[in-house]
Amino acid sequence: MIERQETNKRMSKIVKHNGTVYLCGQVGNRGDNMTEQTTECLRRIDELLAQAGSNKEQILQAIVWVADMNEFQQMNEVWDAWVPEGHAPARACGEAKLASPELKVEIIITAAYNA
Amino acid sequence: MIERQETNKRMSKIVKHNGTVYLCGQVGNRGDNMTEQTTECLRRIDELLAQAGSNKEQILQAIVWVADMNEFQQMNEVWDAWVPEGHAPARACGEAKLASPELKVEIIITAAYNA
Amino acid sequence: MIERQETNKRMSKIVKHNGTVYLCGQVGNRGDNMTEQTTECLRRIDELLAQAGSNKEQILQAIVWVADMNEFQQMNEVWDAWVPEGHAPARACGEAKLASPELKVEIIITAAYNA
Repeated sequence: MIERQETNKRMSKIVKHNGTVYLCGQVGNRGDNMTEQTTECLRRIDELLAQAGSNKEQILQAIVWVADMNEFQQMNEVWDAWVPEGHAPARACGEAKLASPELKVEIIITAAYNA
Repeated sequence: MIERQETNKRMSKIVKHNGTVYLCGQVGNRGDNMTEQTTECLRRIDELLAQAGSNKEQILQAIVWVADMNEFQQMNEVWDAWVPEGHAPARACGEAKLASPELKVEIIITAAYNA
Repeated sequence: MIERQETNKRMSKIVKHNGTVYLCGQVGNRGDNMTEQTTECLRRIDELLAQAGSNKEQILQAIVWVADMNEFQQMNEVWDAWVPEGHAPARACGEAKLASPELKVEIIITAAYNA
């Protein structure tokens, strides 16, 4: 009934239940700038969605945390180019420091998947 | 299977899937005080829920971000008066700076809708 | 269709709908240290999940807010020991000040429940 993938003692990267898949919060690589971190974060989301039998056209909700709202625009440029036309999810964005001071963006994805 | 409304290249204001509707994070008007912004934010939520075939009696979860926790009480007064008796959602509230320094509150709604 | 438990004018502690249960954000006791607050927070989550006909093996998503990311490790130690092997949820963790300056952690749980 619940299917988990890439599970360790702290979290699963993918949890599927009843038509909805939850991804663990995705980030980019420490040390990279906002454009690079957002690009890598979205690449990892693409990869996890594929692994879950989903894709970016099926995202329902995205909660975006940026460590510094002054870099909101750089994040948005990468985001806007990545979102497939006509399939943008519900989104919210707030500022939050992340697990490491070098991390600039974290995105929490909820999506539908192919049964 | 997924129904999106008010979709632009960045986000959809409404995403419906499998009995659950996700709204994009709602805010009030910049420059207004916390009471006014919360009132306007909740008015927009009412409007989007109506558009989605739902209403405030069907809210499942509300995640509230306030830019300054010193204004928690002002937000709560408007919130408490707006919530329909016996139908309060699960709620969480944390402090987060928002997309503009003038924004004081953002609310992320997940609700059920009428099939 | 929607079942609410422990409902007051502001929020419900438990909201069940369509196989998914949403808990209101859980915290520990003010004045306690991070280890103690996380322990108490997770105890309350266990209790609410039981009341909802669920348990920690059925958690889908956990969003964790810590008031000070310098205490991330203390929170994680308690979290890691609590998560049942093979059943870890999708998780995200960001820094956010909470409703009281004495609160150090808040966890927002979404889970499946037994029909």
